[in-house]
Parts: sequence; structure tokens; C-alpha cells
Amino acid sequence: MTLQPYHHEVRYYETDKMGVTHHSNYIRIMEEARLDWMDQLGYGFERMEAEGIVSPVTSVTCNYKKTTTFKDVIEVTLKVKQLSEIRLTLAYTMRVRGQLVCTAESTHCFFDGGRPAVIAERFPELYRAMMEAE
Amino acid sequence: MTLQPYHHEVRYYETDKMGVTHHSNYIRIMEEARLDWMDQLGYGFERMEAEGIVSPVTSVTCNYKKTTTFKDVIEVTLKVKQLSEIRLTLAYTMRVRGQLVCTAESTHCFFDGGRPAVIAERFPELYRAMMEAE
Amino acid sequence: MTLQPYHHEVRYYETDKMGVTHHSNYIRIMEEARLDWMDQLGYGFERMEAEGIVSPVTSVTCNYKKTTTFKDVIEVTLKVKQLSEIRLTLAYTMRVRGQLVCTAESTHCFFDGGRPAVIAERFPELYRAMMEAE
Amino acid sequence: MTLQPYHHEVRYYETDKMGVTHHSNYIRIMEEARLDWMDQLGYGFERMEAEGIVSPVTSVTCNYKKTTTFKDVIEVTLKVKQLSEIRLTLAYTMRVRGQLVCTAESTHCFFDGGRPAVIAERFPELYRAMMEAE
Repeated sequence: MTLQPYHHEVRYYETDKMGVTHHSNYIRIMEEARLDWMDQLGYGFERMEAEGIVSPVTSVTCNYKKTTTFKDVIEVTLKVKQLSEIRLTLAYTMRVRGQLVCTAESTHCFFDGGRPAVIAERFPELYRAMMEAE
Repeated sequence: MTLQPYHHEVRYYETDKMGVTHHSNYIRIMEEARLDWMDQLGYGFERMEAEGIVSPVTSVTCNYKKTTTFKDVIEVTLKVKQLSEIRLTLAYTMRVRGQLVCTAESTHCFFDGGRPAVIAERFPELYRAMMEAE
Repeated sequence: MTLQPYHHEVRYYETDKMGVTHHSNYIRIMEEARLDWMDQLGYGFERMEAEGIVSPVTSVTCNYKKTTTFKDVIEVTLKVKQLSEIRLTLAYTMRVRGQLVCTAESTHCFFDGGRPAVIAERFPELYRAMMEAE
Repeated sequence: MTLQPYHHEVRYYETDKMGVTHHSNYIRIMEEARLDWMDQLGYGFERMEAEGIVSPVTSVTCNYKKTTTFKDVIEVTLKVKQLSEIRLTLAYTMRVRGQLVCTAESTHCFFDGGRPAVIAERFPELYRAMMEAE
């Protein structure tokens, strides 16, 4: 399954007094891209909620390569970096007009009724979709 | 009952590429000041929640007089402008070093178990506290 | 000249603990819609900047009709409500799936080199575009 | 030189529909704590600007240990983790009522007139203050 990159156009209110996109907003763009990616995998937020899956962020890392600013369109590609029994690590690459602006990672676990779940057992379809995503 | 003004120090990420506090943040500062004011009235968020009071914002108006920027300390004073059976209107005055930077208003209704409530009947103590606040 | 409405899909981080879009975000959506509208009028941000036009917000008013939440697509239509010599008032109507969720207004003045400018004289093309926009 | 921890009280608008502080806000709290720490070192933002120092964030990492929510007071302590010729890494520990909620790091370089600067040479007083901070 080949997934489409996500696009975020930087909004005026996302800039700061240096004239660039405030670095905290990249964490939000990661979330946007991740939710879009889940949608593409057939596991949108509504389905996650309906199936009682809660998937908190346990860590984020963001490496800023170049600044961006108002109206820049950031293209985000997202890959599974690691998928263990209970933990998912995603890798993000962000580009503006082909130029690398940011690389990032986020790690997630999955909860089912408040308790950590083994992804492959509890959500086999999601597990398969993530393994096959490119 | 004399209430204390609320102080908000402008954060770096609240500025925009014009170098000033983005105008949307004043709406957030109004909320901070309002929740602090409710606390001072003895009706903090926890008590509101415990008593099942939900008080949504039905409108806001904000008049920008002067720009502010990073590290400015905005002093907010808050008065009851109008208190009808089912609607509360608050007036906000924001100053930096004595200079007026913004005047604003917000209107709220009160819900009890999902239905609009007559404030004086359903929450007499809160009603009295708001009538006496200065 | 017939302009296209603007669409904003509510992001997860725009919701609050009530489960709805935080009311401050509508002020940001107004800005997004306004900048898009200026683009459509042929007066995008870059051109404004290049021509030395600065157009601060002098007031906003927002009337909340219905709550919205994550993934709702808010359609914003924007009209000139009043255009005087030195002041522009815009009216916004926001709908989700045809239902009215918010009406709003913003007022702006125009500065040229730091001083208030008479719009029709200093920016005749922009003035004409705004008068003819629908 | 012993520095004071920084305190951030979580605002209502910083929560999301899960009822907890949205994870992106911790990156902003790190910035608040860092600017406060620079102030305590005698190198506040105004002085940085006056001396032409620009110090962008080159990376951030955030490990979420426990959720926080509205009204929680997050205490942030900040230490120099590494200070090389051209790079500063800071380590953050965030606690609520003594409980660890988040650990984080940020890395910064220093620019002087647009070019990377050797911290100890170009800003010897700041370098010394950072080396001695506890």
C-alpha cells in the first residue's frame, strides 16, 4: 500500500517574532501527518475511538534543518521505523520545495481499556496495515 | 469583595512575524483572567465541574488599542457588565505599564445537565458573588 | 468577481477538554480565511508586503452558534460589510455541513510607511477589488 | 550560582479532547523555562538581542512520563548537559507535586551576525555563567 505525503501550509499565526515558523508547531504538524496516515491506513480516528484504541505519544524528537515561514507548504512523508509488540516508532521527513527542513520521530504505545495492548494480537488488521505501509 | 487583577506575561511563542503578540492570544488571556476571577469568587473550575455547571462562551469582542510583545506584562481587570437571568457579560480592560492596550467583552450562558439554567435560581451563591464583585 | 469560500478542517490540537474546538481558534480561522480572500483578490501577503501595506486588526467579534470538533470542515464565507476611507469591516459566516456554527466580524485599518492611509487613494486597485468582491 | 526552577500552570486552552495537556505544549514550556533560565544567568532576551546573539533550537526531544491537565503546576528544572565550542545541550526535568511527568532535551547553536560563533570566545561571560549554573 503506497500512501500519499501530507501537506501543511504554514499559517501566519504559526510564525514568531524571528519571522519563522515557531519550532513547537512541527510537533503539531507531525500529529496532523500521523492522523492523516492513520486515515489512509483505514484506521482513522473515529474507528480508533470506536474500537476503544487509545494511542498516546510517549516521546518525540525533532531535528530542525532549515527554517520555514508563512505560506511555505511543508510536505511530510511518514514511515514506520520500528514496530515492536507494544511500541510503534514513526519517522517523519519534512520538505519545502524539495529541500529538507526537518526530520523527526515519535513513539507510541497502544492502550485497550486503559491497559497496554500487544498490537499484533489486539489490532491485527492495523498491525498488518502498518507493516505493509510505504 | 474586591478582586485582584490578573497578570499575563507575553510568551515568545505568542508573538508573530510582525514582532507583536498575535491578536488571537488576547482571547486566551481573557479566558485565563476569567478563570482566575471565578477562582477568586470561590467558584473555581473544580467546583463548577463538581456542581455540574457548564458555562460556554457565546460571544467575544476584542478592541485592540496598542500592540504588545514578548515579556510585556498585561494586567487584566474584569467587571460584570450585565447579569441577566440566563446571560452573563463580562468586560475586560488590559493595560501594560498603565497604558491601555485592549478592551474586550465576553458573554456566557450557564447550563445545568445540558439545559440553560436561570443563574440566580440554580446557582444563588455564584450569582450573589458576581453581583458583589468589584 | 466571485470568490471561493475557505475551508478549515479542525485539527486535533485545536480541541479542548470539553471535546470541542477551543473558541480562540475561530479568530485564527478568520485570519486564514481573510488571507485566502486577499489572495483571491490579487492582493496576497507578498504583494501587500512589497507595496509596504500593513493592515492590522483593530477589532474582532465572534458569535458562537454551535460547537465544532476534530475533523469538522468549517466553510467560511467572507463579505465586505463596510469600507470607509480608512477602515474595512469584514463579515464572516462559518458553516459545517450547511449548519451555521459561527458569525464574526473583523475591522482593519491600513498603514503606509507607519501612517494611516486613505484606502481608495493609496491602494485604488485593492479598493476596487474589495468593492467588487462577492 | 543556584538557579530557581520555573513554574508553568497549565491553561485550559492547553488541554485537548483527551482532557490532558496537549503534548506539543511541553515544547513551549521548555522555551519558557529556558528563557527564564537565561534571565537568571544575566543573559535575558533583551541583552541577547542587544549583543546580536541569535540562538536557534537545532533539536528537541521530549519523553512523556505522565499526563498533566488544567491547573497542574509544572515545575521545570534545567541543567546544562553538554557545552561544546559551538553547541549547547540543555536537559529539562518536569514535575507536578513531586511526580516526574516529562524529561526533555534541547540543543542550540549560537549565531553572531548570521555566522556560527564559538561560544567561549565570542560570549565568554555567558559561557562562564552556563558552566557555573546549577
